[in-house]
Amino acid sequence: MMKTAVYRKSHFNAAHRLHNPAWDSEKNQKIFGKCNNPNFHGHNYDLIVKVIGEIDPETGYVMDMKVLKDIVDEYVIERFDHKNLNLEVPEFANLNPTAENIAFVIWNILRSKINAALELTIILYETERNYVEFPA
Amino acid sequence: MMKTAVYRKSHFNAAHRLHNPAWDSEKNQKIFGKCNNPNFHGHNYDLIVKVIGEIDPETGYVMDMKVLKDIVDEYVIERFDHKNLNLEVPEFANLNPTAENIAFVIWNILRSKINAALELTIILYETERNYVEFPA
Amino acid sequence: MMKTAVYRKSHFNAAHRLHNPAWDSEKNQKIFGKCNNPNFHGHNYDLIVKVIGEIDPETGYVMDMKVLKDIVDEYVIERFDHKNLNLEVPEFANLNPTAENIAFVIWNILRSKINAALELTIILYETERNYVEFPA
Amino acid sequence: MMKTAVYRKSHFNAAHRLHNPAWDSEKNQKIFGKCNNPNFHGHNYDLIVKVIGEIDPETGYVMDMKVLKDIVDEYVIERFDHKNLNLEVPEFANLNPTAENIAFVIWNILRSKINAALELTIILYETERNYVEFPA
Amino acid sequence: MMKTAVYRKSHFNAAHRLHNPAWDSEKNQKIFGKCNNPNFHGHNYDLIVKVIGEIDPETGYVMDMKVLKDIVDEYVIERFDHKNLNLEVPEFANLNPTAENIAFVIWNILRSKINAALELTIILYETERNYVEFPA
Amino acid sequence: MMKTAVYRKSHFNAAHRLHNPAWDSEKNQKIFGKCNNPNFHGHNYDLIVKVIGEIDPETGYVMDMKVLKDIVDEYVIERFDHKNLNLEVPEFANLNPTAENIAFVIWNILRSKINAALELTIILYETERNYVEFPA
Repeated sequence: MMKTAVYRKSHFNAAHRLHNPAWDSEKNQKIFGKCNNPNFHGHNYDLIVKVIGEIDPETGYVMDMKVLKDIVDEYVIERFDHKNLNLEVPEFANLNPTAENIAFVIWNILRSKINAALELTIILYETERNYVEFPA
Repeated sequence: MMKTAVYRKSHFNAAHRLHNPAWDSEKNQKIFGKCNNPNFHGHNYDLIVKVIGEIDPETGYVMDMKVLKDIVDEYVIERFDHKNLNLEVPEFANLNPTAENIAFVIWNILRSKINAALELTIILYETERNYVEFPA
Repeated sequence: MMKTAVYRKSHFNAAHRLHNPAWDSEKNQKIFGKCNNPNFHGHNYDLIVKVIGEIDPETGYVMDMKVLKDIVDEYVIERFDHKNLNLEVPEFANLNPTAENIAFVIWNILRSKINAALELTIILYETERNYVEFPA
Repeated sequence: MMKTAVYRKSHFNAAHRLHNPAWDSEKNQKIFGKCNNPNFHGHNYDLIVKVIGEIDPETGYVMDMKVLKDIVDEYVIERFDHKNLNLEVPEFANLNPTAENIAFVIWNILRSKINAALELTIILYETERNYVEFPA
Repeated sequence: MMKTAVYRKSHFNAAHRLHNPAWDSEKNQKIFGKCNNPNFHGHNYDLIVKVIGEIDPETGYVMDMKVLKDIVDEYVIERFDHKNLNLEVPEFANLNPTAENIAFVIWNILRSKINAALELTIILYETERNYVEFPA
Repeated sequence: MMKTAVYRKSHFNAAHRLHNPAWDSEKNQKIFGKCNNPNFHGHNYDLIVKVIGEIDPETGYVMDMKVLKDIVDEYVIERFDHKNLNLEVPEFANLNPTAENIAFVIWNILRSKINAALELTIILYETERNYVEFPA
């Protein structure tokens, strides 16, 4: 039986900086440019959670989007929205909060909260022009 | 030879309600919430039809988008636009018009109208924040 | 002192039909076309509430957008979202729910809930291609 | 002679927090909520600069958009992009960086750089759902 | 009685170049840059027609949007879409097709086709980042 | 190890016409319609470059988006923007510039400029409603 994907879009606003503590300031500045600003900058992140599975014949749903929204709100939005990712989200204490790594962290958070029979993909827009997808 | 996908976006506005006649009112209300409103609600649906194939060297097209548009208009938009999906589109007489099921129905309608050598996928936006893809 | 406008965007999904009970079916069909469908159709309405006033020097706000959001949610979204405008929103019992009239009704609802020193304008998108503004 | 408006859209990403130093923590938290986070959060700001004047018959322009872009880039984007507005943009040393105040500051910066015969308006999106306009 | 604005969005794709025949090539190149390319370039223009008037109590319309659409299609889209504005639209035989002048030309075309009791404004997007409004 | 995709969106404005020199005018007109206009028409093309690979643990990047942007700007945007694709971009001297073929040409240009260990996909919007992806 062919499967169906459902997508749910959410938002959060956060501050971050890109920095590798193993490098000196010069190299951090060279690689990360203005994204290395020690005073932080920020983004309106658009988060799309994609879930793939079979349509339940009783509900017509792959997964109830209200349930998916509640999971995303509780485990991601509540913890990331209006936060400083570097200072306030423990997963980034030792991990550079690039869009790639944020998507990876969100995937790990949500993977354990969603039925393992359903495939999960995270799409994260850092800006309208830069976005990432995990896994690809 | 690597293949190319072409995408064509269309729109239709329709009313619907979500309801499983095998359940009592209480369970319908519990599962579908305000989407179960017996007086219907509605959406501006965005429909994206994706067709995959090889580029025809004579035209430079995978498929003529005007032809694709005409097929989508005749077999989907004419039948779905400004309609009540539950009451006026026979495919939903016994099928709950969730976004998943609408995408599945549209795929079935179009599959027989488009050259079988071309792969077909339906992407359907119920709102800007909720959308589905079949097959995934 | 020059004034500042603040805009807050909300959404609701609703069913409606256009109909003038003073006309016969033929004239209703002629004027309103497929929007006259007796089984209803629907839209994802985007509602933008614009409030104009002076910036409060203590807060830096014209009006707290969270307060504005709560007012819009309580008095408009709760009453219009996932509803049949013709059957379930009393303001349209004797008023045709065109985009123009919906904007006018929303303006009347909100005008009494927002400080009279602030100017109020309603912008309502029925589709991405058709929208209205009251007052203009 | 009737006038024409030209609009130019730009972007910047910045961190900020909302805070009134004349208030204690409790009141700041009550009024500004999670926007008061001392570790900052951030946004992708969309900035639209509107200039009104007569069309120059030689160029067909109200104002050369490339010149306008260069002015906005030099005096606003270079100073605001990837910055912490509270800590790094002197205009906000004693001014709360609400969207209203940011628009007002940008208007003041640009007013002296653009021909006084042209009217100037600033439209600033803090998020897709919250935006402001000065003057209104 | 306060008035209401209705907006109708349309699209056309066209080629153009910016050029002032009273100037030599060097000055045209200096002022118009790559927009002066003698081989033309092109845009997807988004055209928004705004009409202001009182709501007709019989229809609930300021103006029937289907009628407005038909007028815009017949007098603007049919004449501009998939055309070379410089070579094929007579209004630009001696007028530089900047966004400002295109908006002005469209306003002149439509002004005589729409009830004089209704105010008319043209908003024209040349790109997502550059747009104009006439009259302002 | 699961891979991550990064996407970078760019823009260019260009003129083109669709034409097969092996056909007579009548057949070109029949197949390509108004896109066959000998005076050209044009589009605002949105170009999304997708690169798939593993996240570099030192940078947190699949590929530095600034580097990707510079490659796209140098080899595609500089050569395509504000150009007549048929007359000024040599790849289309003998290749019809349909969206499919433009995407294929861009893929070939970029494939040799990007690390071969990274997968590359091109998504090209000719209009908001018509877009293509290569390879699919």
